[in-house]
Amino acid sequence: MSESKYLNLALNEAWKYQGLTYPNPAVGACVVGENGEVLSINAHQKAGEAHAEVLALRDAYTLMSKDDTIAFTCNSQKLHEYLLKHHNNIFKNCSIYVSLEPCSHIGKTPSCASLIASLGLKKVFIAHKDGTQNASGGAEILKSENIFLQLDSKNIKAQELLYPFISWQRDRFITFKWAQRLDGTIDGGSISSLESRTFVHKMRAVNDLLVIGGNTVREDRPTLDARLVDAKAPDILIYSHSDDFDREIALFKVKGRKVYIENSLKRIDEYKNILIEGGEGMYNSCKDIVDYYLVFISTQSGGGTMSLLNKKERFKALHVRELGGDVIMWMKREI
Amino acid sequence: MSESKYLNLALNEAWKYQGLTYPNPAVGACVVGENGEVLSINAHQKAGEAHAEVLALRDAYTLMSKDDTIAFTCNSQKLHEYLLKHHNNIFKNCSIYVSLEPCSHIGKTPSCASLIASLGLKKVFIAHKDGTQNASGGAEILKSENIFLQLDSKNIKAQELLYPFISWQRDRFITFKWAQRLDGTIDGGSISSLESRTFVHKMRAVNDLLVIGGNTVREDRPTLDARLVDAKAPDILIYSHSDDFDREIALFKVKGRKVYIENSLKRIDEYKNILIEGGEGMYNSCKDIVDYYLVFISTQSGGGTMSLLNKKERFKALHVRELGGDVIMWMKREI
Repeated sequence: MSESKYLNLALNEAWKYQGLTYPNPAVGACVVGENGEVLSINAHQKAGEAHAEVLALRDAYTLMSKDDTIAFTCNSQKLHEYLLKHHNNIFKNCSIYVSLEPCSHIGKTPSCASLIASLGLKKVFIAHKDGTQNASGGAEILKSENIFLQLDSKNIKAQELLYPFISWQRDRFITFKWAQRLDGTIDGGSISSLESRTFVHKMRAVNDLLVIGGNTVREDRPTLDARLVDAKAPDILIYSHSDDFDREIALFKVKGRKVYIENSLKRIDEYKNILIEGGEGMYNSCKDIVDYYLVFISTQSGGGTMSLLNKKERFKALHVRELGGDVIMWMKREI
Repeated sequence: MSESKYLNLALNEAWKYQGLTYPNPAVGACVVGENGEVLSINAHQKAGEAHAEVLALRDAYTLMSKDDTIAFTCNSQKLHEYLLKHHNNIFKNCSIYVSLEPCSHIGKTPSCASLIASLGLKKVFIAHKDGTQNASGGAEILKSENIFLQLDSKNIKAQELLYPFISWQRDRFITFKWAQRLDGTIDGGSISSLESRTFVHKMRAVNDLLVIGGNTVREDRPTLDARLVDAKAPDILIYSHSDDFDREIALFKVKGRKVYIENSLKRIDEYKNILIEGGEGMYNSCKDIVDYYLVFISTQSGGGTMSLLNKKERFKALHVRELGGDVIMWMKREI
């Protein structure tokens, strides 16, 4: 396998957690052995949990050492400590491929760059520089330890993966999500699999604002919380020209969240990580500010009459996979 | 990684060539090293070319030995000979995961089971028995050489992958293929990417009959050959109640193929590997005889008014991936 293949393994793994890592970036890592054999592939899954590099190093250590003490440990601090104490130069002929420059700062987790340096890996391949003030500088740490470093500064796939994180640094990131059937219909009852709906609830748990259309609230009477993963529900902006809502529906009863009913989208400016769920009207109102689109396509047809896309549009597929029998696809709009 | 993960790597690779391997089965293989590291993943790509196991063993050999003499060799005979001569017991701690029992017969390629036995792999994991008369018995060969063998006889994913091959043994296999936009539309000009269209041409090259609706021929005036891959065009059955066609269109000019115009689908009974391309009418006429559905979904909307699926249908996704910016998905209909 060539170098780009290892990077693609890391990128592909990272995309599975795109939308779930806020305020951290989605990052993937792949550890490769002396002869080019793949030892491990892992990704950062959630803020507060271990970084991609740490999880990939954990898996590679477990594989090579046959010591499974930390095989299922997710706590970053514990993983750093254990690896530093027990590595016994097992990584000396290994390379690591990361979609983003390993961090230099000690935050919720210790620095990944210093961990890689201390473990004595032979080579580090980085698909994108970290431009943030408090995490950048990982490459310098590695260089100062004489680790062979390769930086692919023009890797478009790594840029696309990192784009939400870059947007949060600048101002905010907006995802427009919808679910449809193969025939394009979005109405007429339940569409997505439980796995797909659980994924959306995980996203809601890390979104600080969820924007929804007034008609959707009136017709579907949704709760719009994160109950499937027992997590915090985001604030809600109901985008509507009228204030005519049944205040008894569950949406208004969720504790600890604000619900705005406004005929403007300006409220979005106060938030960082925004999810928009809506129909055709919402799509048309928002398409100039949306960053990425996330569509769940179920393998059914019939039962609906409306579709989201009724004009000429062209998207670029960023990542496609199967999730619980549905297609889940990240896209950006091509203008 | 667990055993099912290695098998899934093999299965996933094999699905990329589903539709292209006739009369051979789509098969995937994954070679794993002493500690569970992935050494190689490969798949059978086309009849007459090397089997999945041979390609995966070639890649693992190249990786471990650092001898790249056969790294790009696809000729099965040459690979067998080279590996047998040069392996130097390099595979003695390796396992191979295969989606189908390695073959026992010497046909276009020598027996894979005897190759694995001669190379002295430690373990062989087989996800599906080979039930054919002239290729089965691979497991017996391996057992007689005291190779640790594990057979997962109820692996549904392996069954789904192998189903076209099983159908060819019994009588025939029918794929219904269509291309649509995200909004479900199938008309109004070009939809799929060049990569997707090339894939379809590769399929046509190994289909012996292509069935198409009369209206599609009248309106689209398609050639329905395999020119993108410079290969043989399949015979054509135009399913139509009328014989009113412009005989000057390219479809009728392709050398060496038969074109039937018939108001029945009985002609299908004379063929083994059948591809149906059509619209709603064809879909409804054929759905009781179609085995698998193959849909290409382009990330566009607009430009079309008709969709294929206008009634309630439910499919099961068998494999989903991105191809040249489109989604390519194999499905079966759930009844």
